[in-house]
Amino acid sequence: MDKIDIKGLARELNISASTVSRALRDSHEISQATIKRVKDLAEKLNYQPHPYASSLRQSKTKTIGIIVPEVANSLFANVFNGIESEAQNNNYHALIYLTHESYEKEASVLKHLQGGRVDGVIMSVAAETKDFKHIQNLIDADIQVVFFDRVCEEISASKVTINDFESGYKATEHLIKQGCKRIAHLTSSLHLSTTKKRKEGYIKACADYNLPVSDALVLECNEDDKTEQQLTALLTGKNKPDGLFAATEKLSLIPYAICPQLGIQIPRDLKFISFSNMQVAGLLTPSLTAIKQPAFELGKQTAKELFRQLEKKKKIIPVSNIVLPAELIIRDSTKK
Amino acid sequence: MDKIDIKGLARELNISASTVSRALRDSHEISQATIKRVKDLAEKLNYQPHPYASSLRQSKTKTIGIIVPEVANSLFANVFNGIESEAQNNNYHALIYLTHESYEKEASVLKHLQGGRVDGVIMSVAAETKDFKHIQNLIDADIQVVFFDRVCEEISASKVTINDFESGYKATEHLIKQGCKRIAHLTSSLHLSTTKKRKEGYIKACADYNLPVSDALVLECNEDDKTEQQLTALLTGKNKPDGLFAATEKLSLIPYAICPQLGIQIPRDLKFISFSNMQVAGLLTPSLTAIKQPAFELGKQTAKELFRQLEKKKKIIPVSNIVLPAELIIRDSTKK
Repeated sequence: MDKIDIKGLARELNISASTVSRALRDSHEISQATIKRVKDLAEKLNYQPHPYASSLRQSKTKTIGIIVPEVANSLFANVFNGIESEAQNNNYHALIYLTHESYEKEASVLKHLQGGRVDGVIMSVAAETKDFKHIQNLIDADIQVVFFDRVCEEISASKVTINDFESGYKATEHLIKQGCKRIAHLTSSLHLSTTKKRKEGYIKACADYNLPVSDALVLECNEDDKTEQQLTALLTGKNKPDGLFAATEKLSLIPYAICPQLGIQIPRDLKFISFSNMQVAGLLTPSLTAIKQPAFELGKQTAKELFRQLEKKKKIIPVSNIVLPAELIIRDSTKK
Repeated sequence: MDKIDIKGLARELNISASTVSRALRDSHEISQATIKRVKDLAEKLNYQPHPYASSLRQSKTKTIGIIVPEVANSLFANVFNGIESEAQNNNYHALIYLTHESYEKEASVLKHLQGGRVDGVIMSVAAETKDFKHIQNLIDADIQVVFFDRVCEEISASKVTINDFESGYKATEHLIKQGCKRIAHLTSSLHLSTTKKRKEGYIKACADYNLPVSDALVLECNEDDKTEQQLTALLTGKNKPDGLFAATEKLSLIPYAICPQLGIQIPRDLKFISFSNMQVAGLLTPSLTAIKQPAFELGKQTAKELFRQLEKKKKIIPVSNIVLPAELIIRDSTKK
């Protein structure tokens, strides 16, 4: 079956293509009777406007770009669900790009998107990204950008995050209230906005409760294949901790993998809390006490903010900082 | 900064826009010196061709649509990684749409994509989908379609799957070899190609080993909020099973949630195996014996097949059935 286009509709109805085009856009120049004839035939023949022809005319692609480090991760997967639901409500399409934490990949995607394939971009920066010129270039090319989760403070754009500092504080305070006297912090990529603030919350809580704070207790693991080894050294060394707070979901399973081999029982010997949106957190042995991020809502609010910006006609739009609260879910891994 | 376009380049160089356009495409009508001048300036001013203007000219969008039931699922997330990696290698962009298992959503997305927003589509059908006219319409509109995992037998298009029948057989046979005499099958949406074949494998294995086969042992759970109740009834009823084979990852955690409450110990009272690509399968108590699908490879092969088709000039392209083997990973949930 050939695709039907405006010329085909015009031929069938024996009227001009420009009349068909205007009828489809409900132009006041065209009579209601003709509009009805055109639309009825378009419906009958399953006419679909060429999406990119229409985008050239309006300078709108009705498409957004989503740039995330990965998707095989409960947080990002659920954020994506939230973005997608809001995109659907607004009849937008979503191009998705994974950076796999690579700066080079991120820069290359953004450079490409400058060309006008999307109206706006939602992004969470890659772990490797420490320079932000590629993001500023995108904004300078009039592509709206909204950050979520891992944001870039240096850039003037809207940001939707969770309360990372408070959540880090709350996680640490919970361990303290469960009796921990020496709390270690397992984290990675401390230059990221998220992990940086979570660590600040951890340090503030330790200081407020007169617990030791030292570099020896903060373990920044940036190479996946070395994390187990580094954590083993910490957990079996002198002055070993009795509490552990992991800053990301990716790190949350490692203590479960190594503690049994080291003869360390959670929570008896080591109380453990982690950031995690994993559905299985409650089914682990012991079940995992976690800071749960409102992932779906995070995605939804980020998309809402982007669409709000895209609707405005003005070039300069005030940026927002939207902060959503995360939730402490107490389970057995921090039991007294 | 305003975006630089062909006219802008032409103005800067004091040559015509059509010369710039031809120089950028390495036309033999243009001198090498001019080509170099144009390209140098384009590079310097960070010129990006308008992607949709170029797609109109070539009738190619360099974009594919990925239509999946969900993304917060280890299988689909890893399949997506595989597709994305192959799309990157081929300089394609990926639009992603979630159907959330809804036929209506799937039909609406495909209808939209008929308009030419993508060159081809990769899809795994929604659980609700039992009628395939919307897919045939897409193919009739000259959009290439390749199915993965949940395929549609009625439609002539390439399909990339795992060996569902053999894997169902292997899972059941493993339970039999571990001593099970009465094996139940936990599944859903039995009209889907995947679950249908896995069930056939289960039935064949039971029959081959002279184990009972009966409708009472096959539990098809299509309403999430009733699954626990249905499985509880099966596990506590008369003639309760000593082995359980779950056909999908979504069902794999339910026995872990309810068996402790029912006083049923896995694997002592019930040996359990499930299809699952979850990273945590090995950290559950007991660790989960699973059929692991080559998810990344499934995505990669599906994308490869689509790109192979898109490269061909001919309208009629032979379809392929690519079948990848899944792997039995033996852990403690089926221990003797």
